[in-house]
Amino acid sequence: MSETAPTHAGDAWEVLDRAMADVRALSGASWLLQWDQETYMPPRGAAARGDQLAAIQGTLHERLTAPAVAEALARAEAAADGDPDRSAILRALRFDHDRAARLPGDLVRAIAQAQTDGVETWKEARAGNDFRRFAPKLERLVALRREQADAYGVPPGGERYDALLEGYEPGMRVARLEPIFARLVSWLAPVVERITAAPRPDASFLEGRFDAEAQWAFTLELLEAIGFDGRSGRQDRSVHPFSLGLDPGDVRVTTRIFERQPLSAIFSTLHEAGHGVYEQNLPAEHRRNVLCAAPSMGLHESQSRLWENLVGRSLPFWRAFLPRLAHRFPALEGVSPERFHRAVNRVERSLVRVDSDEVTYNLHIVLRFELELAMLRGKLAVAGLPDAWNDRSQELLGVRPARDAEGVLQDIHWAQGELGYFPTYTLGNLYSATLFAAARRDVDGLEEAIARRELAPLLNWLRQKVYRVGRRKDAEEIVRDATGTGLTDRDFEAYVKEKYGALAGAAL
Amino acid sequence: MSETAPTHAGDAWEVLDRAMADVRALSGASWLLQWDQETYMPPRGAAARGDQLAAIQGTLHERLTAPAVAEALARAEAAADGDPDRSAILRALRFDHDRAARLPGDLVRAIAQAQTDGVETWKEARAGNDFRRFAPKLERLVALRREQADAYGVPPGGERYDALLEGYEPGMRVARLEPIFARLVSWLAPVVERITAAPRPDASFLEGRFDAEAQWAFTLELLEAIGFDGRSGRQDRSVHPFSLGLDPGDVRVTTRIFERQPLSAIFSTLHEAGHGVYEQNLPAEHRRNVLCAAPSMGLHESQSRLWENLVGRSLPFWRAFLPRLAHRFPALEGVSPERFHRAVNRVERSLVRVDSDEVTYNLHIVLRFELELAMLRGKLAVAGLPDAWNDRSQELLGVRPARDAEGVLQDIHWAQGELGYFPTYTLGNLYSATLFAAARRDVDGLEEAIARRELAPLLNWLRQKVYRVGRRKDAEEIVRDATGTGLTDRDFEAYVKEKYGALAGAAL
Repeated sequence: MSETAPTHAGDAWEVLDRAMADVRALSGASWLLQWDQETYMPPRGAAARGDQLAAIQGTLHERLTAPAVAEALARAEAAADGDPDRSAILRALRFDHDRAARLPGDLVRAIAQAQTDGVETWKEARAGNDFRRFAPKLERLVALRREQADAYGVPPGGERYDALLEGYEPGMRVARLEPIFARLVSWLAPVVERITAAPRPDASFLEGRFDAEAQWAFTLELLEAIGFDGRSGRQDRSVHPFSLGLDPGDVRVTTRIFERQPLSAIFSTLHEAGHGVYEQNLPAEHRRNVLCAAPSMGLHESQSRLWENLVGRSLPFWRAFLPRLAHRFPALEGVSPERFHRAVNRVERSLVRVDSDEVTYNLHIVLRFELELAMLRGKLAVAGLPDAWNDRSQELLGVRPARDAEGVLQDIHWAQGELGYFPTYTLGNLYSATLFAAARRDVDGLEEAIARRELAPLLNWLRQKVYRVGRRKDAEEIVRDATGTGLTDRDFEAYVKEKYGALAGAAL
Repeated sequence: MSETAPTHAGDAWEVLDRAMADVRALSGASWLLQWDQETYMPPRGAAARGDQLAAIQGTLHERLTAPAVAEALARAEAAADGDPDRSAILRALRFDHDRAARLPGDLVRAIAQAQTDGVETWKEARAGNDFRRFAPKLERLVALRREQADAYGVPPGGERYDALLEGYEPGMRVARLEPIFARLVSWLAPVVERITAAPRPDASFLEGRFDAEAQWAFTLELLEAIGFDGRSGRQDRSVHPFSLGLDPGDVRVTTRIFERQPLSAIFSTLHEAGHGVYEQNLPAEHRRNVLCAAPSMGLHESQSRLWENLVGRSLPFWRAFLPRLAHRFPALEGVSPERFHRAVNRVERSLVRVDSDEVTYNLHIVLRFELELAMLRGKLAVAGLPDAWNDRSQELLGVRPARDAEGVLQDIHWAQGELGYFPTYTLGNLYSATLFAAARRDVDGLEEAIARRELAPLLNWLRQKVYRVGRRKDAEEIVRDATGTGLTDRDFEAYVKEKYGALAGAAL
């Protein structure tokens, strides 16, 4: 710390506002670099892109942890006057600052390097179905993440895994997740059993070729319909769909199109658009500080899943949009909304998470959560991971991968060293059901509106209850304030049992 | 300066290498942000984009002028061992560092702000043909640039204008430009007189509609033919064509397509591709330091003009490519290369620089150079600019704008506060003629190769003589080493008189 004359809180806020604006601007720049890398960058741009990202991320870390910022933060906290937004800013900034300050710069760089190595090797290992090739990189990443967790320190009421989980879902703990996940498995297993015992719904009308340009045009129509603002964002194509918000005025989503799998682009677009409308409706008046962000990945994911599944796989939605789709694809003209709805809600025991239905999806997550937790606890070695994966897949999902490429090597997350991320997908699913149930209670005629292609009533409810809050509260607090309920699997259970019971014509 | 223990030059180089790599990476990031702003950014992304660019440019300025860098630079210079590349790096870095260090951070920010204001107001003023609306912004920009020039100080043998010119064309001085420009005007004026007195070549076959997608495909074919590597770059569309090199492995060019003006996209693409092949062939082994760059804007422009005009408006080129173009546009099937060549080389007295032919183009530049020089010398007030423009346009070009939108408001440069930039366009034209004349002497059968669509011999000559040198030498030194001649208008004169004499069938 430098020696400075005592100054009042106004000066402290000036330092903090400037640092936050820079961090925000540099983050936005870094996200654009990543967006471009997945959309338009020519192949030989990769080396320089790595340098560009590292330079910006290094600068970000320096700005956030500068002694002047630490000092100003302490002064502003000491002088806090109870203004709710300012208090929220100080809480969020304290959180970000302390986490960054606990990480040595060398470790930040070592992790960045190991991530790049990890992803490159994972791509080859997956292509060659060769886990042993990937194993040393994963060992290194697990070791670094353990080191990172230890640098953060165990959060209150937690264990080592929680120090990483905290980066994606602040306040969440293994101790809370385990009983919820156990309950989830206990009722999901028999539900999956009963649904998959029944005959598979007919989807023969989805076979054949669906013109890529017409698919693209339909996804743009969907984006507009759900309220994704084209003046403040755009859709492009990428191999793996994703979304990024540089600013509420600049939100990028991507999709991918397969001419023989017309549902892929539709649900990718709805999923990313859910993230997108969240980002576009964050509190723009805080665009230069820490409040203009979602409080957690789980809450963010709740919005992609809400628009993709609770809305996009519902019967009212297809009453509204099937005529629009059939207008572009005359082959669908004879298909009823009910038949289409059944086809987009097929449930099956499958190997690959990203292709799985909304019922079995969470079992894929439980599998990953258990294994990464065991690795961080030191109870599972990387060498034992493929067998552990396959055994547990058999138990949870009823299928056993014949090849690691379709098993333990299927996801990029561990190759990026993302340990602690997977549970947020299930948190998103659970929150989405709780939020949608509350929206149905609060908004008269919500589903009738959807069936008329009116999605504004839902968007407005979410905007008010979730999006505009930004990071003023934590995820569970936002859900509780919006719905009266905190984290639970009961709304998701009711949703699944009601919907799939109706589809099956029998109680589940 | 901080107190540090004396260290050897190796440590100094470590500091410099890291600083240069960061500056290079941050510059690349900043160029991507600018590329995106002109290609894909949604309209409401502009506010955040300004913040992002300012944050990166502020960081760049800090990195380059950090006390540790100044100190390391002095130590490395003191310990210089005569290695040519290292000496060249130290020269270029000293130049960049000293210029940056002379500018107060406040002035950098004030200029950035005034540029944004200037461009926004200029857009409105041009649309409304209202110079008085723009005048106060331009006054502010001229004042700031005078302040900036005074902060730099007058370079040896120069005047205030030279301090700005130095930023685009290091080593160039008004005192050298004035006699060259005077000579240029003295022979151009009668040449233009004689050409425009003759009947205008027929170009009726360029009327009608030329499908945009087919035009786009032809521009991609041109890019590939001249050796622009699609693995290390890409073309997109933008309102104003431009090019940017983030790295030799990542070069972006843009073009624009008008269905009723098929030449526009062709020559835009050739122009930007000329910049593009220069960037792709810079010395990649120096990609993390200051040598992987062109030494001046004039030399850079020489490459866009060489490919656009010396190659792209030549008869051999159209012998090669007209059949390819006619293949896409059957309306052109009966047109001979000779007739097409005449049509793409029409010379006329016109108001707008960017639409002007290669003969009158430099007169547009002389006009701008004289006026901006007078403003910086304090001999012309902004209020008097429109009249001065119109009078001098009449004298130099023989046409007088009826509206400021087609006169003094036509270019964006002054609205961006770019004073001292315009002369580099003419330097580019002069260098391009000198380089192309030397290539014709050095490379046997150069034009016959072009007529066979073989552009590699020319590209290879330029790669070796110009592109691969990077910033190891200054622009004129590169041209002199490549051709035996420094800056002169004589090669350009010979080129114009030979080419347009042949087209006119009479000596000029």
